[in-house]
Amino acid sequence: MTAAPESIAKTITGELARRIVAMCYSDLPEQAIRWAKIGILDTVGVTLAGSVEDCVRIVAGVEGIGAAQGSSLVFGTNRRVPALDAALINGTASHALDFDDVGESIGGHPSVPLVPAILALGEQVDAGGKDAILAYVVGFETESRIARAVHPYHYDRGWHPTTTVGVFGTVAAAARILKLGEAETAMALNLATSLAAGVKANFGTMTKPLHVGHSARSGVLAALLAKGGFTAGKRAFEHPQGYFNVFNGAGNYDAAKVFKHWADPLDIVEPGFGLKQYPCCGSTHPAIDAVLKLRCEQNINADDVTAIEVLTNPRRLPHTDKPEPRNGLEGKFSIQYVTLRALLDGRVVLGHFEDVAVRDPRIRKLLPLVRAGAHPEMPADSKEQFAAEVVVTTRAGKKLSARVPHQICRGLANPMSREELWAKFEDCALRALAPAQARPLFEMLERLDGVVSVRDLTDAIAVRRDAFPRMERTKVG
Amino acid sequence: MTAAPESIAKTITGELARRIVAMCYSDLPEQAIRWAKIGILDTVGVTLAGSVEDCVRIVAGVEGIGAAQGSSLVFGTNRRVPALDAALINGTASHALDFDDVGESIGGHPSVPLVPAILALGEQVDAGGKDAILAYVVGFETESRIARAVHPYHYDRGWHPTTTVGVFGTVAAAARILKLGEAETAMALNLATSLAAGVKANFGTMTKPLHVGHSARSGVLAALLAKGGFTAGKRAFEHPQGYFNVFNGAGNYDAAKVFKHWADPLDIVEPGFGLKQYPCCGSTHPAIDAVLKLRCEQNINADDVTAIEVLTNPRRLPHTDKPEPRNGLEGKFSIQYVTLRALLDGRVVLGHFEDVAVRDPRIRKLLPLVRAGAHPEMPADSKEQFAAEVVVTTRAGKKLSARVPHQICRGLANPMSREELWAKFEDCALRALAPAQARPLFEMLERLDGVVSVRDLTDAIAVRRDAFPRMERTKVG
Repeated sequence: MTAAPESIAKTITGELARRIVAMCYSDLPEQAIRWAKIGILDTVGVTLAGSVEDCVRIVAGVEGIGAAQGSSLVFGTNRRVPALDAALINGTASHALDFDDVGESIGGHPSVPLVPAILALGEQVDAGGKDAILAYVVGFETESRIARAVHPYHYDRGWHPTTTVGVFGTVAAAARILKLGEAETAMALNLATSLAAGVKANFGTMTKPLHVGHSARSGVLAALLAKGGFTAGKRAFEHPQGYFNVFNGAGNYDAAKVFKHWADPLDIVEPGFGLKQYPCCGSTHPAIDAVLKLRCEQNINADDVTAIEVLTNPRRLPHTDKPEPRNGLEGKFSIQYVTLRALLDGRVVLGHFEDVAVRDPRIRKLLPLVRAGAHPEMPADSKEQFAAEVVVTTRAGKKLSARVPHQICRGLANPMSREELWAKFEDCALRALAPAQARPLFEMLERLDGVVSVRDLTDAIAVRRDAFPRMERTKVG
Repeated sequence: MTAAPESIAKTITGELARRIVAMCYSDLPEQAIRWAKIGILDTVGVTLAGSVEDCVRIVAGVEGIGAAQGSSLVFGTNRRVPALDAALINGTASHALDFDDVGESIGGHPSVPLVPAILALGEQVDAGGKDAILAYVVGFETESRIARAVHPYHYDRGWHPTTTVGVFGTVAAAARILKLGEAETAMALNLATSLAAGVKANFGTMTKPLHVGHSARSGVLAALLAKGGFTAGKRAFEHPQGYFNVFNGAGNYDAAKVFKHWADPLDIVEPGFGLKQYPCCGSTHPAIDAVLKLRCEQNINADDVTAIEVLTNPRRLPHTDKPEPRNGLEGKFSIQYVTLRALLDGRVVLGHFEDVAVRDPRIRKLLPLVRAGAHPEMPADSKEQFAAEVVVTTRAGKKLSARVPHQICRGLANPMSREELWAKFEDCALRALAPAQARPLFEMLERLDGVVSVRDLTDAIAVRRDAFPRMERTKVG
């Protein structure tokens, strides 16, 4: 570790680096460790699920990506590649399904800029479970505080904050895993202003998850270059042609917010993140919850149903009112489809978004009974932004209904139970792993603070070829 | 090649892709081929010179970069790595000395986004010399036209157009080398809006040349992903949250300029580019030319000189009036030092910017005689922006002077002669190659249109270990 010269300490990155390097595990509140473990657990799960997606297959198949042997696991395989490549491939996988957590401060997805980079570098330097947790908390705090300084303008302009802000979370986490000093950490943060990228015009395509993989690789690269003695500007945030002015523009940011209430409380503790319980558009989740509640309270026979009415805030409808989804992707954005699935199966899981599941004759028969509309008590500007009521009419003319209040994903106010976490994790992990691997991995992640080496964790994530033979990847280019 | 569906043809990238794919070698005017060969030749030279710089050594030394065997040469070595890694390393080398050409339209450096990517991919697919020339012209046109749509705002805001616009030149050139169809080319251009990066706050540091390497890799990646079937938005330039609105903002660009006068004439022909003849700040070049002119016309004995006055437009002075440079980097920005070097040695070459050269006692003795100032006939707002006059006073009290008019680098109006091109190329190439390699390589580049395979060219660029042993690179990370 090197001490920061005075000239660096008087800059934004100098002050950030001082705080990044100063945080230590023994000072972390219990809640921070608890939520960090849940965030890492959930991200490992969704990354495994994403690892078998086409976008990841194409990225990993490009000539030269993952071509060298290295220290870091490619999720969904048992191959080890250099950390840069692992960050790119696993980062893309982590966001491939858009099933990862969401954060209020970052205005996007807080964990995917962190976990793939932490595991890839942690494996390289043989970091411990506590090192990974600390790096996660530090990265979460860094990206969240910078986000507060640039939002809401940054978000509205069209940047993808998960990467255009998240890259600094990656750098902070990587800096801790690599044990960089203050000067090197500041250098890496400055360098990363020149690697930050990602515009929303590419949302809804494979390029969105690529943002995350590309950015995770860039953050790791910045940290490794700084470690190697690379140079960057000293004031690349506050410079007239630096991050704040170039990405946001004068008057559209508040640099002081980077340090205001830093770690007081830690952003991971308050407001924290929300977990996505269902692998479909977040706007449909309250309706699913309402149906599951109804199903729990009443004995409903699908053959006995004559109508299903799904009522939400009208803002939820333009992108989810899809009465006739034709494939898995459209199913994710059909409030009619997911509500019906919840009613029929008592859950909404990844398998429901295979094309074949959406075309299930049982579904096609009942879909015409489902109608979506605006709830009269949930006007567009009300506090009930993410709320829903479902009314089921039976053949006997009986109306059964259930309503859930406003909630965005499963955050602090309404956390997922251990059973719910396991149900999601298992659903995700089994896309890539043999059944016997999932539960021990889940339990290891639950006690990550006791794991001696990240390598033990990635050994548990690695696909065991004997248990689950998979096809070889093909090369592109 | 795939035909573009109608929906793509009605977008900016669809129309760009149509024009990119439609250009063919037999339609190129002779002047385009002539300048393309000179641009490629000069870029190969400065890339060889840059290949031994610290910034390149650190990039190439990061764990995982250049770790796999591949098809594409790393300049300054005889190693072959995947095209992605070669683009990153050689791209960084190409701009390491800031000695590469400048373009009026791009408002930056037009050739470095093109040449490292073209050679790296050209070697991979065994492209020919004419393919490389065509890809260069197409890339030059693409980046220059997009630049016209976003400048001057884009430049003034603080983006580094060599990469934030140049990345689209890389994509266009890569698309031609890979023989992508219209749909794939459009997809790669859309994807690249999410990879464009680089802010000016990092100018003056190793991160500036890294911009170029990182961007060259990103452009190659976009093309390879599109070839592999990756998806991106269809309107990522004109989308409300796309390239134009996010990077420039509403009202700060003119999308119509992308297609106005496309290839009529080709930007490489008019206005074309300017070559940097001397490896120091462009603001000092007119003063060097004035001294060399004086030296040519008069017989000057350094021991006989009592004063040297260097007079320029006052805008050239704030960053070049450095009477006592202490090292090579400061020497590059000292108009006193470079003028004195030209007077003493009759040329200004790379070796003059080693620290030891700046500390040469012969220089230290004469430097106090050199004074820089504003020329009374070159006011700040005059047309003589880049002009200079030098007045030398001899012991006998005689005043000898020479003056050169406004010119930015050596462009269309005042091109470098073949001898001058060779002098620069040799100076550059010998930083990395044995003397016997430089001249045959120069001559091969002069007749690039007759070269059957890019592989023959890169074989001629590769360091021959028997002739010139070099140290092994060390790994970082």
